[in-house]
Order: sequence, then C-alpha cells, then structure tokens
Amino acid sequence: MRPSSSPSEPALDALPPEPPPGLFDEVTAHGPARAAVADPAWLRHLLAAEAALATAQAELGIIPPAAAVAIAAACRPERFDLTELARAAAGPGNPVPPLVTALRSEVGGEAAEYVHYGTTSQDLLDTAAMLITRDALEPLYGSVSRAAGAAARLARTHRDTPMAGRTLLQHARPVTFGLVAAGWLAALSTAAGLLTGARDLLAVQLGGPVGTLEAYRDAGPRLVVRFAAALGLPAPALPWHTDRTRVGQLAGLLGTVAGAAGKVARDVTLLASSEVGELAEGSHGGAAGQTSGASEAEPPPVHGGSSAMPHKRNPAAAVSALASAAQAPGLVATLQAAMVQEHQRAAGAWQAEWRPLRELLVTTGSAAQWLSECLAGLVVDEDRMAVNLARLAHTVGLADPTEHLGAAGELVDRALAAHPGYEEEQ
Amino acid sequence: MRPSSSPSEPALDALPPEPPPGLFDEVTAHGPARAAVADPAWLRHLLAAEAALATAQAELGIIPPAAAVAIAAACRPERFDLTELARAAAGPGNPVPPLVTALRSEVGGEAAEYVHYGTTSQDLLDTAAMLITRDALEPLYGSVSRAAGAAARLARTHRDTPMAGRTLLQHARPVTFGLVAAGWLAALSTAAGLLTGARDLLAVQLGGPVGTLEAYRDAGPRLVVRFAAALGLPAPALPWHTDRTRVGQLAGLLGTVAGAAGKVARDVTLLASSEVGELAEGSHGGAAGQTSGASEAEPPPVHGGSSAMPHKRNPAAAVSALASAAQAPGLVATLQAAMVQEHQRAAGAWQAEWRPLRELLVTTGSAAQWLSECLAGLVVDEDRMAVNLARLAHTVGLADPTEHLGAAGELVDRALAAHPGYEEEQ
Amino acid sequence: MRPSSSPSEPALDALPPEPPPGLFDEVTAHGPARAAVADPAWLRHLLAAEAALATAQAELGIIPPAAAVAIAAACRPERFDLTELARAAAGPGNPVPPLVTALRSEVGGEAAEYVHYGTTSQDLLDTAAMLITRDALEPLYGSVSRAAGAAARLARTHRDTPMAGRTLLQHARPVTFGLVAAGWLAALSTAAGLLTGARDLLAVQLGGPVGTLEAYRDAGPRLVVRFAAALGLPAPALPWHTDRTRVGQLAGLLGTVAGAAGKVARDVTLLASSEVGELAEGSHGGAAGQTSGASEAEPPPVHGGSSAMPHKRNPAAAVSALASAAQAPGLVATLQAAMVQEHQRAAGAWQAEWRPLRELLVTTGSAAQWLSECLAGLVVDEDRMAVNLARLAHTVGLADPTEHLGAAGELVDRALAAHPGYEEEQ
Amino acid sequence: MRPSSSPSEPALDALPPEPPPGLFDEVTAHGPARAAVADPAWLRHLLAAEAALATAQAELGIIPPAAAVAIAAACRPERFDLTELARAAAGPGNPVPPLVTALRSEVGGEAAEYVHYGTTSQDLLDTAAMLITRDALEPLYGSVSRAAGAAARLARTHRDTPMAGRTLLQHARPVTFGLVAAGWLAALSTAAGLLTGARDLLAVQLGGPVGTLEAYRDAGPRLVVRFAAALGLPAPALPWHTDRTRVGQLAGLLGTVAGAAGKVARDVTLLASSEVGELAEGSHGGAAGQTSGASEAEPPPVHGGSSAMPHKRNPAAAVSALASAAQAPGLVATLQAAMVQEHQRAAGAWQAEWRPLRELLVTTGSAAQWLSECLAGLVVDEDRMAVNLARLAHTVGLADPTEHLGAAGELVDRALAAHPGYEEEQ
Repeated sequence: MRPSSSPSEPALDALPPEPPPGLFDEVTAHGPARAAVADPAWLRHLLAAEAALATAQAELGIIPPAAAVAIAAACRPERFDLTELARAAAGPGNPVPPLVTALRSEVGGEAAEYVHYGTTSQDLLDTAAMLITRDALEPLYGSVSRAAGAAARLARTHRDTPMAGRTLLQHARPVTFGLVAAGWLAALSTAAGLLTGARDLLAVQLGGPVGTLEAYRDAGPRLVVRFAAALGLPAPALPWHTDRTRVGQLAGLLGTVAGAAGKVARDVTLLASSEVGELAEGSHGGAAGQTSGASEAEPPPVHGGSSAMPHKRNPAAAVSALASAAQAPGLVATLQAAMVQEHQRAAGAWQAEWRPLRELLVTTGSAAQWLSECLAGLVVDEDRMAVNLARLAHTVGLADPTEHLGAAGELVDRALAAHPGYEEEQ
Repeated sequence: MRPSSSPSEPALDALPPEPPPGLFDEVTAHGPARAAVADPAWLRHLLAAEAALATAQAELGIIPPAAAVAIAAACRPERFDLTELARAAAGPGNPVPPLVTALRSEVGGEAAEYVHYGTTSQDLLDTAAMLITRDALEPLYGSVSRAAGAAARLARTHRDTPMAGRTLLQHARPVTFGLVAAGWLAALSTAAGLLTGARDLLAVQLGGPVGTLEAYRDAGPRLVVRFAAALGLPAPALPWHTDRTRVGQLAGLLGTVAGAAGKVARDVTLLASSEVGELAEGSHGGAAGQTSGASEAEPPPVHGGSSAMPHKRNPAAAVSALASAAQAPGLVATLQAAMVQEHQRAAGAWQAEWRPLRELLVTTGSAAQWLSECLAGLVVDEDRMAVNLARLAHTVGLADPTEHLGAAGELVDRALAAHPGYEEEQ
Repeated sequence: MRPSSSPSEPALDALPPEPPPGLFDEVTAHGPARAAVADPAWLRHLLAAEAALATAQAELGIIPPAAAVAIAAACRPERFDLTELARAAAGPGNPVPPLVTALRSEVGGEAAEYVHYGTTSQDLLDTAAMLITRDALEPLYGSVSRAAGAAARLARTHRDTPMAGRTLLQHARPVTFGLVAAGWLAALSTAAGLLTGARDLLAVQLGGPVGTLEAYRDAGPRLVVRFAAALGLPAPALPWHTDRTRVGQLAGLLGTVAGAAGKVARDVTLLASSEVGELAEGSHGGAAGQTSGASEAEPPPVHGGSSAMPHKRNPAAAVSALASAAQAPGLVATLQAAMVQEHQRAAGAWQAEWRPLRELLVTTGSAAQWLSECLAGLVVDEDRMAVNLARLAHTVGLADPTEHLGAAGELVDRALAAHPGYEEEQ
Repeated sequence: MRPSSSPSEPALDALPPEPPPGLFDEVTAHGPARAAVADPAWLRHLLAAEAALATAQAELGIIPPAAAVAIAAACRPERFDLTELARAAAGPGNPVPPLVTALRSEVGGEAAEYVHYGTTSQDLLDTAAMLITRDALEPLYGSVSRAAGAAARLARTHRDTPMAGRTLLQHARPVTFGLVAAGWLAALSTAAGLLTGARDLLAVQLGGPVGTLEAYRDAGPRLVVRFAAALGLPAPALPWHTDRTRVGQLAGLLGTVAGAAGKVARDVTLLASSEVGELAEGSHGGAAGQTSGASEAEPPPVHGGSSAMPHKRNPAAAVSALASAAQAPGLVATLQAAMVQEHQRAAGAWQAEWRPLRELLVTTGSAAQWLSECLAGLVVDEDRMAVNLARLAHTVGLADPTEHLGAAGELVDRALAAHPGYEEEQ
C-alpha cells in the first residue's frame, strides 16, 4: 500500500501527541488503528483538507493566492483546542463550524473570509473520514498480512504434521496442521486483498451545501480534481453526500476481515484448550512455528497470565482477537442501515456514521493485530497432536492415520502458491 | 451476466412448480429472487451437484461409468418428496443425509453405493448455496440495472429541471432533479457493479468430511476442477468449509445494494409526501419520466390504493422497497457473525447461514425490484418543484434560483457518461 | 400461561392444515412456534379480529346486529384462498385490503358494507400479530421451562459431582456439574420469566386510519375495550400504530431468551467434544440425567448420526440450538431499528416488522425446543469428569480436588430453591 | 430513582476530573451518561468494589480487620494512573490485574496480600459494570422523563389543536397535535418505566475464579450479601459469570428506549421540514409548548445554525437524537450475541461486552438528552397546522375537519391520566 501522508499535510513532528489508551483500549482497541482514528488525527485531516481546498482554489483563481497562503499557514493542529471545538460542536451538530470560526480567527484579516470558501461541513468531514480510513487501513493491512505470513510459515513448517480433524467439535478424520494453517492463510489472504482493494473506495468529498459546487461556478469540477490531488485521494464523479455506497462497502469488507480473524482466533482458543492442548500462545513477537513436545520447556508467556491462577496459560491474544472481532457485525449493521440518507444531507443517518466507522476500523484492526501477535508466537505441540490423533484412529479404526490424509499435502502447496509473498512479512 | 443453467442440471420443464407466495411475500419478498432461493431450487441444485459429482468421478475413474449414468439419471427433482426430506433433516441436522438415502434408493443396485461418494453434507449444501446465489444474483442484477436505467433516463430528461435542495429536511439551495436522479444512478450503478463482481465470489465446495479429499486419493484436486466445470462454477484453491470469507463478502455487498435501494426509495417517499408533492408513483411498468403539471390528469395507480382513504395515492412501491431494504443490515450482521466457524466444520455457525443467506438475497432482491417498478413509473411534477423552489428562493433571497445551480448540469452529464448502458435497460 | 384460544375464534377442527416444513425448518425452525406464526394462523387471526370487531360494534350499536352475525359467520378461514390474498397484497402493500374485499364478497348483501367498518389495515395486522405472538409464546415458554426442568434435575442429581472448572477454555479450579447445571437453570428460569411477562406486552390495536377512532364517534374507546375482550387481549390506553415500544420490548426479551439457550447449548457442545467427553446427547425425549461410565453402553442416538462418519455422535440438538440462537441478535436489531416510525403510519418501518417478528419467534422457539430435547436426554459421564478433573488437580497441585469446591453445593441448593417448579416440567 | 452513591465509595470531591468531550461526543454522546461510563468512573467503582470486598471480608473474619482498613484507605482513585493501568491491561486481557498490583503496592505491608482476596478479575469488572450502569441509568431516566414531561405538556396545551394526520407520509385524516404528543408521551413513559425497572436487573458479582466462592469456604454466600449491601446493589442467587441474562435484558430495554426517542425525533424532523413547517426547535431549555403563528418572531435558535446557509433553522437536537438512537440496534445485537459464553468464563464474549455496554448507555442517553432539549423548546406553529389541514380537508372533501377528530380529545385525556407525574419534570 502506498504511504499515507498527504502532500499538503503538516509535518508529523508538528502533531499533537497521540492520546493515551483508554482503560479497555489495549484489549479491544489494540494496535495502531486506534491512533489513526483518534481526535488529533481528525483535527489534522480536517485542517489538511481546509488547506488543500484553499490552495486548489487559489490555483484556479477562485480565491486570492495570498489568502490561500495565509490559510495554509494557519492550518496547524497545535494551534487549535480540540476540547473547545468538541464543546462547540453541539450547537451546529458537528465540529466543523467551530473549527472554521477558529481557523478564520487564526488566519485573520481579509484572508479569513476565504476560509472554507463555498464548501460545507459535510465536505470537510467526509474528506477527513476518508483520510482517517486510509491511515487506519494501512496498519490494518500490515496486521492482517503479518498474520497471513505467520499462517503461511505454519503451513509450510507443518505441511505434513498429522492431527485430528474435527467437525461439530467431534473427532472426524485425520488432517494435517499444515492444512489447517493453509485454511487460515486462505482466509487471511482474502482479507488482506480486501483491504488493498479498499483504497479504491476512498475519494474526497466536495460539493458545497447541496452538491452543485455552486460557489465555484464552472470551475467546480476542476476544483474537485485539484483538491483530490492535493490530498492524495481519488476525485469522485459526483459529490456523494447521500450516496453512501462507499461507506457501505467499506463496512462490509471490514466486517469480513474481522470475521476471518475471528475464525482463526477461535481455532486457536479451541486447540489451546486444556483437553486438546495442541497449541499454546508463546512469547509474543517470537518466531513462528516453534515446536515443542509436551514435556519440553516452553517460552515464558508475555500475555495470558492469571493472577488468581498462576498455573494458567491463557491464550490471551486469541481471546482478545475474538472479543475485538465480535464487535464488528453490529457496527457493520449500523453503518449499512445508515445508508438510507435523505435528499442532499441526511437528518441523522450521516451523523450516525462517525462513531461506528471509527469503531469498526479500530476493532477490526485490534482483532487483526492480536491475531498477528498470537500466530507469530504460536507454539505447536506435535506430540499432543499425535496423542489426540491416535485416539481418533482408535475410535474410527484406522491402522495408520497418516495414510488417510488425502490430498492434504498438495492442498497446502497449492495454498502457499496461491497466496505468495506473505511469508516474508514480519 | 451469464445464463445460470448448469450443464448437468435437468431440463427446466421437469421442475416442480414454483411455490406460491406467502402472505407477506409480495411485499417484502417481491420479485424473482424468491423463487430462486425456494426449496425446489435447493432440491434441484443439490441433485445437480450429486449428478455432477458422480459424472466427474466416473471421468476420473473413481467410480464406474455405469454408476454415474445411473446416478445422473436418478437425479430428477420430481422423484423426491421435499416434505419428507425436510422432516428427516432434524436427525442429522441437515437435509442431505435423507436426500442421499432417497437417492440411493432411487438409483438401486450396485450403483447406489457410489452415490455421494467420498463427500460430505456440507460439500453438497455449500455448492447448492452457491448455485442458489448465482441464480438469485441474476434477477437481482436485472432489477438494480433497470432501476439504474430509470434513474439515468430521469437524469437525462430532467437535467435542467430546477428544484429545492434540502439538507436535514430543510430547504437549503437550488439543485436540479437531474442531479438528484444522477446521484441515484451513481449509487445504483455501484450496486450493479457489486452484483456483477459477486459472481467472482462463488465457487463449488468439495473436500470430503474434513477437507482433505481423502476418499479420492491423488485424484482429489482434479476432481474438484471437473466438478466445478460441470456446474459452471469456479473451482476454489482450497475447500472452504470454515473459511467463510466468500459468504461474508457476499453479505457485505448485498447489504450495500439494499442500502443503495433504500436511499433512493426514501427520497421518493419524501418527495412524494403530501406537502412536497414533487413526485408520485404512477402506473407501474409505465414509461419513466412522465411529466405532469399539478393540474393534469395522472395515470391510474396500480399500487398504493388505500381502502380506508380512497383519495390517497401511496407510494407503495417505494414504501415496500424501504421495508425490504430495512431487513438487510441485521441479516448481514448475522452472516458475518457466523463467520467464526470451528475447526473443519462449525457447531452451529455454518447451519446458522442457511436462513439469513436466503433472506438476504430475497429482501435485497425485493428492495431492488420494488425500486425498479417505482422509478419506471415515476411521475415528476415540475410545476410543484417550481412552486417549492420559489419558496426557497424567497426565504434565501435569490432573485432567480436557476442562476444558482452551479455545475449541476455538467455533473449530470458526467454521471451519465460514467455509468453508460443503463438507459437501454428496461 | 393461559390457553390461547380467543373467544371468537373458529373451532380448531375447521382450520386449514398446518403447512409442511420447509427444507431447513426442522433444523433452525424446529418446534411448535413455526406453526403458530404460519400463514394459516395469520389468516385465522385476521378473520377472528374482523369477526370480533363486527360483534363488538354491533353490541355498541355501531353496526346492525344482523350484519355482525353475517360477518362473523363468514369469517371462516377455509373459505379464503391464502395464495390469492398473498398475490393481491402487492398493490396496497399489505394483505388486508384483498382480505376485506374477499370477506365482503363472502358476506354479501347489505352486511358487506359493515365489514372492516371504520378500521384500517394496520389495526387488523397489528392485532393479528399480537395473537400470533401470544400463540407462539406459549409453546416457547413450554420449551424453555422443560429445558429449565431438565437443568434442575441435572443440578439436583449431580449436586456433588466434581468436574474441572474452565475459564477461557483452560482448566481453572474444580466445580461441580451440579453448579454448572444450576447456572443453566438460573439463566433458563430468567428466560421463562421473561416469556411469562411478555404476555403483558400484548394488546389489541384499534384506532382507525390515524388513531382517532374517528368513525366510531364517542363509542370508540368503549369499542376498543370490547374488541380486546372478545379476543382475550388487553386494551391499550392509546392506539399504538407508531409507538412500537411493545415490539421493541418483545424483541429485546426474545433475544435474551435465545442468548440464554445459546449459552447452555455452547456448554453442551464443548463438554461433548471428543477431547472433553463429559457429556453426550442421548436418545432425545429420554429421562434426564442418565449417567454412564465411559465404558457403559449408551442408548442409540436419534439425532446426530453422520452418514460419512458412522462412528460420530454429534451433539446435533445442541448444534441446532446454537444455529437457531445465532439468528436472534440480527432480528432484534432489525425490529428495534424499525421502531422509528413516522407520524400516524410508517412508510416502510412498520412493514419491515412482519418478517423479523415471525422469524424471531420461530428461531427463539427453535433454540429453546432443541435445547429442551438436548437436556432431556443428556448423558453425563462422571468417570470422564473425574479423569479430566484429576488432570486439573495434577496441574494445579491439589491433593483432593473435592476439598476445593467452596460453596458449590450450597449454591446449587439456593438455585433450586430460587427457581422452584421446573423439575415437574416434562 | 435512588441516589447512586455507594456507601463505601470515596467522597465525590476526591474524584479525578471528568474527562473532556471527544470531538463528536457532544453530538452523539451528549449528556451526563458519558461521564458516568468514563474511565475515571470505572476506576472509582473498581476501587469501591475492592474496598467493599475487603471490608465485608473483615466483618466475616475472612481477613484481618486492620488489613481491610488499610485496603479501604488505599482505594483512592487519585492515587492511580489510569494510563498505566490501561497499558498494562494488554497482558492479562483486562485491567484488573495491574490495578490489583498497584493497589497492593499502595497498601503495602502484610495487608497487601489481602487485597482482592479470593476473587477474580471478572468479579470486579462485572460489579463495576453494574455500578457504572446504575450511575448511567439515573441521568438517562432523567432525560427520558423530562422528554415525557415536555410531551405531556404539549399534549395538554394542544389537546384540541387540529392538524393533518399522515400515513406513509401522505395526508390521511385529521388528528390533533395533542394526540400526536400523547403518543409520544405513551412511548416515552414506557421507556421511563423500563429504565426504572432496569435497576432490578443489577447485582454484584462475586464467585471467585470459577464461581464456587472457594476461598471463602462456608462464609461465601454471606460474604456476597455483605459485599452487595456495601455497594448498594442486590445480591444475586448465584454468581453470573456466564449467565448474561442481566446484560441481555439491559441491552434489550436500552434499545427500546433509544427506539422510542428515535420515533419522536423523526416526527419532529418531519414536522419541522420546510414544506410542513408545523414545528421548529426553539431556544433549548426554554418553556415547552411555545406557540407562534407563522408570521410571529421566533426565539433565536441556540442549536441548528448553518454557517453555509444562515437562513437555515435546522432541527439540530432532533437530528442529533436520531443519530444517537440509530446506533443502538447494532450495539444491542452485539451484546445479545455475546451472551453465548463458555463454561465458567468466556474466551472473548465477556470481553466483548465492555465497549458496547458503555456505548449503548451513552448513545441511548444521548438520544434521550437531545430529545428532552428538543421538546422542551419546541415551537408549535398552529397557523401552519391549520393551513396544511385545510389542504387535507380540500383533498378529502371535509367541510369542517374539526368535526372529524373522533375520540382524539378523550384519548389525550386518557394518556395524561395513564402517565401522570411527568408534567412536573423539568
């Protein structure tokens, strides 16, 4: 994925510090997506959009060049008080009007009247939401592809490690752990592909109060193109104030990513359960595919300790991944239900998007990040797999279960060939 | 989209009759998707899959050619009793085992033992679900593209028809009805594109009990390819018994389609409200873009009459489209939540897909079908638009509102150019 | 709960036959709730409401007594063609107008004009929905209380049966199976209590087109009371055409019932997993609390056989309960989102209730019914519990795990005392 | 409702300051519920629970009295660093273990080992969640009852104000604004009643690692009672670690409250639309039921100004109420889906509750708070109602629409009598 910095955004070292985590954030809002959607990021993107707009307008002769210079110079996040803006958002129903007021005051003089020229709050907020999304997608893609890489390495390492296959939680027929991991790889690779494709859904928003670009007369469509270029986003064919198919698609694909992560995490929690005991979470961030017999020493867990029960080795990363993934479907439903937006600006449904879009990016990112940590340090107990498989073989009446693996090996090879490149991720 | 009949499916004239509509079906399960997902279609596809499997197995020497001929000959839906199969599904938890028993009985002789050879219920049900989905997507695409066509014609016809723009349900600035319809076109065209892309998500399922293709030894992967070819579906790289990213993606895009339809329908209900009065539903199936002054005779409504209030002209198609679209988000959430499936076959989450997948196809199809009927007969009252716009102009202080339309006309042209081909749909 | 037949309903032997199950109905629409919400039941209740209305109107002198007699006599479901009504529902957007037309034709003469006098489609449909709900709640309560009864018996029988307690799927500390079952009892008893309370949410709907009872002049409020009495439902203080708090509450409590059933079913699937092996589903309908050592012969399974893997003993009832329960949350969301209904009758949100309300009653009923069958025949393997517990004791370092059961026994006693009466259910 | 302070909670003046609003919080997280669920409140309640536990344990002789005194003295929120706790929560998967570590360090000496004695993280977090909920329900009830009060005053004031009744957004028959407001009152009164009842769902959680109260031996059940009394919450019959019927019910009723608020807000946005113009939001917090003719001066709006369109008078409070209410259904679905929790502590589903429970309390509170502000200042334009009604009368052919109001007045009286006490709310 391309780097995310917008041409007209201020230098990163000028940014306000990342907000500290909330009390539960490191569990279900884990990973870098949280900072990408936080208030300072919104402020930064809103100001970047105002600056880009003024600059593009000046280039087309819509506003005086000097005004654009003054506006761009004033769009420095550190000069604005997020709390004040937040408090003043109640009146108009969104935080852009107070931001415009503050920015005009910051700009001063005649240039102030060219701030936010001919545009509307939704233009700014939708554009900022797209920039937020772009920035959150990048680490999210990173987490998913790292998880896919770990799955690929597990599939390759354990291509021929036999284990019990289970349906409806019952022993069924033999499989290999390689095939199990190849299935994880396939799902995670699909998820990674969706995130790459998601960038094509992004676009700036610029239409003015009702989408006619009224104030810009015949320069409007060209202004949209320049505005988009300045922010590094595509220009849409039409303003999309109440055409929320972008948001609906984004929601649908994020929900799919969360579901893919949840499936893998569920398998890990089950295979790590005390009675099954075939997997364990190791020291996070360690090398994938560590293998130990049941009696070997295991690396000290970083996650998953229980104060009440020190013997326990909880699969805390997988559990947190599941907890994060479980929150996605409801958020997807909220965002897709909010697609029904009236006329040229919705009376509630648009405003209803802000929170769930952020939350969905964060919770999906959290699921993916936890999963990548879980898989990277996963400890595979081949001995335990053999013990459980022997029990299956006894029940089913298989003399040698490894003679009943069908095309498992070939399928692993096909999956690795079909989803290349992830093994290098780390 | 390609025609949907599978090479190995029985002739259509041999099919059981389409089931009659349920009491509410013509309201929120309107249109052809309902028949595509109905029980007879499931039976037909399940048998087509059994026949295709046997034929492909014979081609690869897995079962005797004579057995495949006998099996394919027995796969005639009219010979099976859906109700009996349904009753017997409770025991195993799905209807395939009783179908296999009945099919074996129908085949008879030595060939009977080759029925369903080496496969598992989920292989059959997932494959049938994909065939069901393919068949339901086709009329759904038709409905959406017809609605898009009607929107395109409205946009072209009313490119320069001014009307009041509204934000938060308040008069804001002037727009044109052409631009409003162009926005509908953009959303519906996106929806149509999603449906076209949805075919790429489909694939047969074949893996045997735990996904290793065990019974087929080294012929398994080739068998998957032949099985897929026989049914006209792609072959997947891996069995996807518990990799439900296909289903999750499908759910997400259907929810987006429903949301797009809902947005347009909401606009119609609002613009058709008594006080606004700018649109009315006409005789359904009529020519799009009928224009009448407020005093002209309007065509007799087919839909929307009220027995209690004969004067009323309800926008029944748009209302039913909204009712249909409103059901999608919850179904999307259910399907995406069900992606978290255990091991090689889920204990509940897989079985939880059957109903919501059908319902989502049907309710999205219903929303699209109603919308296509609504837009095809939409009556546009330009006089009323002018009256309402004059009021806006008075409030805002615009001497001539048509001088304040910005780039509306150009945007309509761009939308029509960006989304070609729909105007020919009917 | 009281018997459900309404005073003015036709004799049961005059009813059309119960519709056959759909292909998947016996899995996720299991149990008697399905028939209670089926089309014939709707027709029966709609006609019962028309008859009750006419009779009540005659009592108050609003329509001639002879007309009421003729109308009530004509309200016989077997005289109406459900399919024709369903087909004709598309035009007005609901099936009541064609029913009224057909009923008028059936009544004939002067009395025909008094059919549906002064009322509106929503009055009839909402009232019928309440009768449908009442009828579906009754078997649903039965299923839940039978499940609670089985849980109570398990708790009593196994009050002191030690087993491994598990947190995050890891061995934690000892518990008893009695305490586990007491927890199930507590949840199911809460669910049963919610269903009993649900009847208080029901009420007839009668307001006429906009809720003013216009046609009845000053007799309107008294008519509501008589109409309600005739149908055995409470009379509401106001018409509730767009006050959907009843429906929202009903949805919320049904979702809670489904969740409670799902929790118990999840425990069963996990405890019945091959590696844990502490529970198994027996012959359904058998005596609860069968106990067998791992080596004893077990009763032949009725459910759960796998054709591909005859050795398997799937917990099919618990799996189907989970599949059914998983569908509830999305339906709850749909119904509560649909509470936002415009003015005196909603443009879509009301119509959006019909399908999810039925589905929610059915899927919750299915979850409860499957669970009651699952628990009634549950086979408890105390030996296996002891083996697993010994492993926990070894890991944790407990000499005698039965000395570490805390207040488990007392808590079981408290639960049994707090939730009396269920043990007699069967 | 009872005051919310717990007997053992620290004095309010010792509390850390309320966190500032986030950028969008004043729109969709409006009102006092936000502070009630914020991190400082969690910290305060977690410490109150630790203190109460120690005190109760000392009373029963489980720990030394001096230890309890030391522990209670150390439970001062200002001594703990929320950010540090948050950061350290990732390892164990919840913030209690680091809090216990910090508290032990704060207590020091021998007493430190009695901190958190015999309990488990979930005991603390569930108990704190109940205290959080209790504190959030109180202002939520206040908002709903103030909104109900405003609706009651509007119903009384406008008992006989005729207006057009609308179905499917079409003119139907005459109603009164009093009846419309009485319908709002009925829905809001139901909502208020649900919130009052919600307190009965609350209970402390105390069971130790697996719910056996193991560490307390035979004193466990008595300890639960004392612990509950110290916190002002009921004691449950059993630990409810994985019996989440409390949470499911709470979710269901909050969703109903949000839906009720959304219905009223939708009506306001529609009646305030430019073409209808019968209502307007006035200065928030003003007297309810202000009446003005269309030509009269209206009070200056506090909310709803548009910088781009200064003429606009957006119903910003109703719009924000709708945006807030729209987020509830998805959260309800998430919480009810999370009821399916494994064994004695869930591997993900429990942790999945934290965010949506907070969000649901906040967004429902926000909807209610916005609605109370909206209704308190609502401006009713009787002239415009008369104009619109005249148009309806003309269409329908009513000589005098006020002769067609049916029982509207009596129904208003009944609603006011059925829902007393709200008119005094302010």
